[in-house]
Formats: sequence, structure tokens, C-alpha cells
Amino acid sequence: MLAIAFIQDLAVLMLAAGLVTVLCHRLQQPVVLGYIVAGFLIGPHSPPFVLISDEQSIRILAELGVIFLMFGLGLEFRLRRLLRVGPTAILAAFFEIVLMIWLGYQLGHLFAWSDMDALFLGAILAISSTTIIVKALGDLKMKHERFAQLIFGILIVEDVLGIGLVALLSGIAASGTVATAEVLATLGKLLLFMLVSLLLGLLLVPRILAYVARFGSDETLLITVLGLCFGFCLLVIKLDYSMVLGAFLIGAIMAESRQLAQIERLVEPLRHMFSAIFFVAIGLLIDPAVLRDYAWPIAAISLAVVLGKLLTCGVGAFVTGNDGRTSLRVGMGLAQIGEFSFIIAALGVKLEVTSDFLYPVAVAVSAITTLTTPYLIRAADPLARQLAAAMPAHVAGVFGAYGTWLRNIRQPGQHALLAALIRRSLLHAIINLALVAAIFLGGGYFAAPIDLWLDQWLPQPNLHKALIWGAALLLSLPLLLAAYHRLKALSLLLAELGGHSSRTRRVRRALSELIPLLTLGSFLPLLAALSSSILPPREWLLIIGLLAAVLLALLWRWFVRVHRQLHSALQETLDPHEPPES
Amino acid sequence: MLAIAFIQDLAVLMLAAGLVTVLCHRLQQPVVLGYIVAGFLIGPHSPPFVLISDEQSIRILAELGVIFLMFGLGLEFRLRRLLRVGPTAILAAFFEIVLMIWLGYQLGHLFAWSDMDALFLGAILAISSTTIIVKALGDLKMKHERFAQLIFGILIVEDVLGIGLVALLSGIAASGTVATAEVLATLGKLLLFMLVSLLLGLLLVPRILAYVARFGSDETLLITVLGLCFGFCLLVIKLDYSMVLGAFLIGAIMAESRQLAQIERLVEPLRHMFSAIFFVAIGLLIDPAVLRDYAWPIAAISLAVVLGKLLTCGVGAFVTGNDGRTSLRVGMGLAQIGEFSFIIAALGVKLEVTSDFLYPVAVAVSAITTLTTPYLIRAADPLARQLAAAMPAHVAGVFGAYGTWLRNIRQPGQHALLAALIRRSLLHAIINLALVAAIFLGGGYFAAPIDLWLDQWLPQPNLHKALIWGAALLLSLPLLLAAYHRLKALSLLLAELGGHSSRTRRVRRALSELIPLLTLGSFLPLLAALSSSILPPREWLLIIGLLAAVLLALLWRWFVRVHRQLHSALQETLDPHEPPES
Repeated sequence: MLAIAFIQDLAVLMLAAGLVTVLCHRLQQPVVLGYIVAGFLIGPHSPPFVLISDEQSIRILAELGVIFLMFGLGLEFRLRRLLRVGPTAILAAFFEIVLMIWLGYQLGHLFAWSDMDALFLGAILAISSTTIIVKALGDLKMKHERFAQLIFGILIVEDVLGIGLVALLSGIAASGTVATAEVLATLGKLLLFMLVSLLLGLLLVPRILAYVARFGSDETLLITVLGLCFGFCLLVIKLDYSMVLGAFLIGAIMAESRQLAQIERLVEPLRHMFSAIFFVAIGLLIDPAVLRDYAWPIAAISLAVVLGKLLTCGVGAFVTGNDGRTSLRVGMGLAQIGEFSFIIAALGVKLEVTSDFLYPVAVAVSAITTLTTPYLIRAADPLARQLAAAMPAHVAGVFGAYGTWLRNIRQPGQHALLAALIRRSLLHAIINLALVAAIFLGGGYFAAPIDLWLDQWLPQPNLHKALIWGAALLLSLPLLLAAYHRLKALSLLLAELGGHSSRTRRVRRALSELIPLLTLGSFLPLLAALSSSILPPREWLLIIGLLAAVLLALLWRWFVRVHRQLHSALQETLDPHEPPES
Repeated sequence: MLAIAFIQDLAVLMLAAGLVTVLCHRLQQPVVLGYIVAGFLIGPHSPPFVLISDEQSIRILAELGVIFLMFGLGLEFRLRRLLRVGPTAILAAFFEIVLMIWLGYQLGHLFAWSDMDALFLGAILAISSTTIIVKALGDLKMKHERFAQLIFGILIVEDVLGIGLVALLSGIAASGTVATAEVLATLGKLLLFMLVSLLLGLLLVPRILAYVARFGSDETLLITVLGLCFGFCLLVIKLDYSMVLGAFLIGAIMAESRQLAQIERLVEPLRHMFSAIFFVAIGLLIDPAVLRDYAWPIAAISLAVVLGKLLTCGVGAFVTGNDGRTSLRVGMGLAQIGEFSFIIAALGVKLEVTSDFLYPVAVAVSAITTLTTPYLIRAADPLARQLAAAMPAHVAGVFGAYGTWLRNIRQPGQHALLAALIRRSLLHAIINLALVAAIFLGGGYFAAPIDLWLDQWLPQPNLHKALIWGAALLLSLPLLLAAYHRLKALSLLLAELGGHSSRTRRVRRALSELIPLLTLGSFLPLLAALSSSILPPREWLLIIGLLAAVLLALLWRWFVRVHRQLHSALQETLDPHEPPES
């Protein structure tokens, strides 16, 4: 009977996990590591017993573990915080990820691994482990120090870039090549998809959750949350993205709802249970023979992780104006790999593009660097003092001058305010235009089924194209209008900067009309390229254009109102309630 | 890829469940019913789409649903409350279950179903639905009225009897016959197993949980709880009992720990998620063709459930001294079947002893009686008034006199106190002797592996038996001693009742020594019968007996102390902290 085998596996797994988490608490080691060890002990590679009989079922539950892990990460993510983390986090994270991928790739080639193995190794080394860091900083009681806040900022950016990395790797693994154009197209589509899901999600999901929460039933809220989570993951899978992305995005969207605290309380036990299964399932895969055969690469990679992260993150933090001690602590804190690496390694196994040894190697490196993390953090201060003492005076002077200079040019003033205004207008315009692009891309995506459906009444294919394209344009009109308004405001602002004399007044007015129209005009060919599959012939385009112009003239005010309502609904979700940030 | 099919199934299931629970809240209907309907709608029997592709995985998760449902029921169960529910609950529940099984069995034969189908139908009708009743009473805001308390008491007894029923049905289905002796043996072993698990569990589990809780980590506590829960379920399955029993027992044991509130908070989301899957999976099985073909039986059975439960529970409540109105309300409240019926029906399917139509019929009857429950409860008061008005005066007088008489003989007094004292001593003696029986049964159960192990050193089989039997006796000595003490106290008490004159003093003393020794003496043959497989030859028995006597004489005090410590540890778990009873 399958069911009994399954219950037996679960019982063995949970008992082992339970024992091990108690042991880890006694020995003050991270629980994650304990789970992996427990998995190894009950797994097929450790004598004397084979305790797990139905690995397939456990692996399915482990997939749920990935979903709940990423969903939980999303719930802890704050969109607003991302906008606020500042240059340190963004620069350090970007710098780190690019360099670590390069380092991993080079290391892989050094070991004479295949191209794909080397690439995945790079990706595996790129992202640090939120779980381990939070645990280590908590244990050391350093969670609220400044460098810890910097680390959390970097982790947020890392999560976003990591999500992109997973999507990118899936694409590269599918096509087998690393063509720049393709990578850019994949990235562009990914960004567009994330933008559209975020905007639609932020408009819809918090309202759904608020409605459901009114019934006052934990059960109903939880089932709705799970329905939305799995439903969105399914959608993401159907669009050929990784469900990692889906779970993270829907988590980030729900994080902006007013029911966040309640949702976290309800989802936490599920995350505990399934992530335990996930980490134990990782342990099941460890083969000691592989570890023995790859002892040298594991040692080299572990060293590369520690040194690479220390350098990239430390330099990133220093360049953006932190003192040497803080930079060193940031670098030391981030010097490990964890759950994201497992997910990327699992992706390679699932897509069947990496060799069998990569997963256990990643697990071993993660185990080693997890163990070293607390010692590294504790060693940062003494090391900083020694470095400062050993450094020649004039070098220290140069470094100090750099910091002073950076703090000087960052003085806030009128310019900063103006820059913020410009940035905001530009952002709004870009978002609106991106949405328009998404609408036309979506039209192309759904053209085939719509075509089939329309064929029943209208047999002319050109008319279909015209209808789909026209509908897309109709949907886009409020967005185009909004983009136009934003661009006009922006160009007015820029024109004002030029001076206030009455002589240039006419020029300024002309400029403020021309710039938005020119921008939109240059956007149209791009749109045509994006929607080439549904682009109707020229004569149809002309008719559609005329119709759109008439509609625009007639419904201008209504369009503006619709857009303003959507915009303020979004603002409402993002602004009024500041949940306590931990 | 299996994993994607699984995620898709989960997504469809959760989305459907989410939609339906929102709808149920709007329409003020029980969510359970909604889940079943959702399951039917996405299931294989409802056009136009087949939305669930991997039913096997869903069914495995539904098994987890059963575990979490019963575990949750156990957590809400209070051993102490069971000891306090009083005669109404015990009598009404027992009366109801026996009569409903008989009624279902007769109905099954009336429809010309097979013996096994009829028997399972009886069992399906026997137990009312805690979930539905709690929901209905909550909706009607009647949870705190007296009749509701009576209903909850009956439900507690029903749960215990239902657990026994499941074990019994498994036994009957395995042997294929309903031999009285076998049924009694099965029941006896079951009771013994429950007793031993409860006592050992109460000694160990709360201490383990208290130890783990000290780490202050929700994750560690949850994983430990799950490990204990699944581990105990596994043990129970290995002993050929149903995991329903295991989940309920371990839940009831954990309900006595100080971490109960925390455990409930952590386990609740898991229960919500998996019980939703369980109920939706029930809906998947509904075939409308079966419902059409069996419309008449379904109608008849539904009527039988309502009338049968109304009569049995109502009469049970009235006989034990409640007024007519309360009795009627109790009967009306319990007039439905629910989750236990599904578990019993699923048991029949799993053991392959019932026909395919039984499960959908049970689901349909549950759906109908669930819908009628709130109306019945609301109809109880008007009906009671009409009945009272229509009743001839002398009949009403007889009923009234019965109630008065019953209340009179229940006056508490010195006799009641004495009776409680006697009951307590008797209970302790019986528990100790039952534990001794369990030790010897366990010795027989584990004799084979011990034999094999001992063979390495000692090749004489008789010596093995002597060793095992002797070890069992050694373990039993403190318990036997305790039983002796309890029986002696009891007989002293009884002797005192005979009078205080000095003439009878010697007789009384002799009696108080004789009764315990005689009782223990008559227990020994039973013990020998229970342990027949490990009973050594007579000469060995003599030696063992002598050794035991010597040991007893030497270690009397130590044995008494050990037993007292265990006893007070158990008391400590059960007594000091009264958790708030809801």
C-alpha cells in the first residue's frame, strides 16, 4: 500500500528532523544544516538501513517546500523597502552577483567541467542565504546594528536578481546557448511580466484578501491565500517561467495587503513543515562517494565563496561610502551560500543540463560556508583593527578622503528635490509605456485562440488582426494618455530649468509640446515590432489610427478619470498603512 | 513532469476550495459541504473538463487530511472531561451507537445489500459530526446553552466509541466474520493498547514537549509535534490498527501538555489545508449516476438518520433526567452524519470489502442531513411546545414524576463520597492489573525477535521462555504491589462498612488480607493464558516465583517508591494546570 509507505517516510523524516532540530538548538547550530544531516542519515547512501521507501512522494512535498520557502521570502519582502535600500545595496548586490557568476564559471572551467556545469556553478555561488544570515545575526545579537541593515538591503536586491537569474538560466538551458540578444529579450519579457503581475496583483489581491478577511475565518483566509498562491504559480509555470518566481511575486504582492500579519501567522507552520521536508530531501541526495571524489573542488569553491563574497560585497559597501569596519562586516556576513543555491542546483537537475555531482558539491559548500559564517562575522572587528594598524598612513588618508568627499556630494538640497521629481515623472511614464508594450505582447500571445474563435463569424484574417490590434490600442489609450501627461510635465520642468525670461517662452512652450509627442512617436515603431504577429496592413492601421484619434478626442476626460482611479487605487495599497518593519 | 501536474492539481483544488468557502460564507452554509461540492465540480464525473490529472497524489494528501482531522479532534479532546461528562453522555452515546448500527444493518438488508455493506452502513450512521454541530450551534449562537453542553459531552463519548468502531471494523473485515469471542478479544486488546499508550504517552510526551518548548522556537516545537504524531501513527499502523486511532490518541495525549495552546495555533493551518484537501477529495469521488440510481435508499437512509438519532439521543437524554425540551433539542442537534462516516466509508473502500456505491451514498446522506441540521435545531422548541400541548395530562404527569424521582435519588451525600472513594481505588487496581496484562502480552509479541537474539548465547528454548517471562514478572512487580495495596485499602473500606464492633474485628482484618490475595491469585491464571506462548515449564515457573518472592521481600520499599513516583508524575500531568475549557 502506497499510503502506508508514505506515512512511514513522513514519520521517519519528521522524527529525524525533530531530533535533529532539538540537537541543533543544544549545539547552537543552524537548524537548516541539521535537516540536511538528518536527510543524509536516513537517506539511501548511509548504511545500515534504507529508511525512505517512496522518494518520489517526498520529492513532490519538497517541491511544495520550495514554493512555501519562496512565498515566505516574498511575504517578508517589502516593495517599498526595495525603493529605499539605496545605492549601497544595489551596487554591492549587482557587483557581487556578476563577479561571483564569473568566478564560478572560471572555477568550473579550471576543473574542466562542462560549460553548463560551470555556468550553474557560477549561479549557485551568486546568492547568499537569507535564512543562515538571519539566524547567525540573531544568535550573535547583532540584528539591529547598522551593518546588519545594510546586509538585509543587499539580500533584498539579491533576491530580486536571483529570481531573474533562475528565469534566465531556464531560458539558457532550454536554448542551450548564451546569445546576448536572446538573453536581453528574455530579461525584457521577464521584467515586463513582473511589472504587469505586480501592478495587476497590487490592484486585485489586497482587495480580494480584505474582502475574504471580513468573514473573520482563519480557514477561509488561509484557503484563499493558498488558492491564489498555487494559482499564480500555475500561471507562471504555464508561461514557462519557474514557479520560484511565481511564489515569490505573489508573496511580495500579499505583503502589501493589510492582512499581512494574519497571513504570516497562518502560513508559517506550513512553511516550517514543508521547508523541513525540502532540506531533508536535499540531504537524501548527498552521496559520500561524490564528496570524497570532489573534496578538492569543494574546498576550492568554499574558499572562493568566502573570499569572493568578502571582496565583492566589502568593496561594494566601501565604494558607496561606508567605513572600512562596516564594509568588512558586510562582506563577512554575506560569505555563504544557501537555499537559493539549492534551488538553482535543483533546477539544473530538473532540466537535465548539469552533471550529477553538482548538487552534492553545492550542498557541501553550503554546509561548510554556513558553519564558517558566525566565526567570520565575529572575526570582522579584530581583522578591521589589524588592517587599520598595518595600513600605511597615506593609503588610509586616501580612503578617508574618499569617504569625506562622497558624504559631501550627497548633501541634500533643492537639486535633490528636483531630481526626485524628475525621477518620479520618468518612472511613471516608463511604467505606463511598459504596460502598453505588455498589452500588445499579450495580444500577440493570445492571437491564435482569438483567431480561431473569430473565424466562426468573420473569415477575413486581416480583419481579425485589425480587431485585435485595435482592441489592444483601445486598452492602451488611457495609459498612453497618462504617459503623455507625465512626459509633458517632465518637459515643462526641464524647460523651466533653462531660464524664465520671456524671450524663450515660446521656445519653451513648443519644446514642452514636442518632447512628449516625439517620445510617443518613437515608441510606436517599437510597439509595431513587438506586435508584428498581429500587425494589420497599412490601410487598416490608418483606419484604426483615425478611430483612435476620434475616440481620444471624445473620451479624453473619461480616459483621464479611469487612469487616475486606477493610479490612486494602487497608491492606496502601497501608501497609507506602514506595516511594522522588522 | 509529475511535479507540474501535481502543482496544477493543487492549484485547481485550492482555487475551487477558496472560491467555495467564500461562497459558503456568503450563503451561510457549512464550509465542509462547499468543499465536497467543489470536489464534485472539478472532479472526473462533471463535464466539461477533467481538471484533476494526478488523483493518486491528491489522495495521499487526503490521507494526511484524515491524520490532521483526527489529531485536531484529539487536541480538542480532554481526558478529564471524559471522566466528567456524566451518565447522560455515556448512556445516550452508547444507546445511539448500538441502535444506529442495528438500524443501518437492517436497512442494508432491506435494500438487499451484502452483509458487509449493511454492517458498514450501520457504522456510517452511528457517529454524528462534530464539525457540523459546532458550526451550526455557532451560527445559531447556542453554543453555551445547557443542551449544547450535553451534545458536546455525547460527542466526546461518540469519538471514543467511534475510534473503537474503526478498529473493530478493520478486524471484522480482515477475518470476514463477526465471531463474538474474536470481537471481544479484539476489543480487549484495543482497550489495553489504548490504556498503555495513554499512560506511557502521558508520562513521556508532555515532558518531551516541555523540554523542546524551552528553546522558544515555533519551528522546533512544530517539527517535534509532527514527528511524534506521524511516528505514533506509524507504530499504530505497524500494530495493525487504523492510523485514525493513532492520530486521535497522540492528539489527546498532547492535549494534556502545557504547550497545548501553542500546538493548536501551529497545527491549525495544517489542519485547515489538509482537511480542505480531504473533503474536496471526497467530492471527487461523487458520481451523479450513483446518486440517481440510489435516490430511494439515500432518501430512506437520510430519514432514518434524522428519526433514529432524534429518538435514540432524545430518549437517552430524557432517561438520564433531562426535561423534554432539552432532550428534544439534544436529539435534533445530533441528527446528522459527517467526517467520521467518511472515514468509515473510506475504510471499507480501502479494505475492499464494501461496494462502490456505499461511499457516494454516505456522502449524499451526510450532505442532506448537514443541510437539515440548523432547521431541526430551530424546530426543536416549537415542536416541544406542540408535543406538550398534545400530550394527555396523565402521561405528562408520569414523565414529570420520573424526572422528580431521578433528581431525588441523585442527592449527593456521604454515600456519594464513599462511592467515589471505592470507584477510585477500584479504577487504580484495574489499571495496574491491565498494565501487567499488557506487559505479558507485549512479552509474547516480542518473543520471536528476542528468541532469535538470545539463541546466539543460550541455545535452550525453555531458558529463553523463563528469561522473558521472568523479565515480564520483574517489570510487573511494582504494578502488582500497587494493585495489592489498592485492593487492600478497598477491602478495609468495605470491611469497615460492616460495622465497628470489636467482635468482628478479627474477621474484618482477615477479610482485608484475604480479598486482595484472592483477587491477585485469580488474576494469575488469566496472566498465564495471555502469555501462553512464553510460559515456561512448571519447574521454571517455580524457580521464577521463588526469585520474585525474594526480590519482593528485599526491594518492597524500593518498588513502592518507584510506583509512587510514576503515579505522581502522571498526576502532575493530569492535574495541576486546568486549561481553559471552551
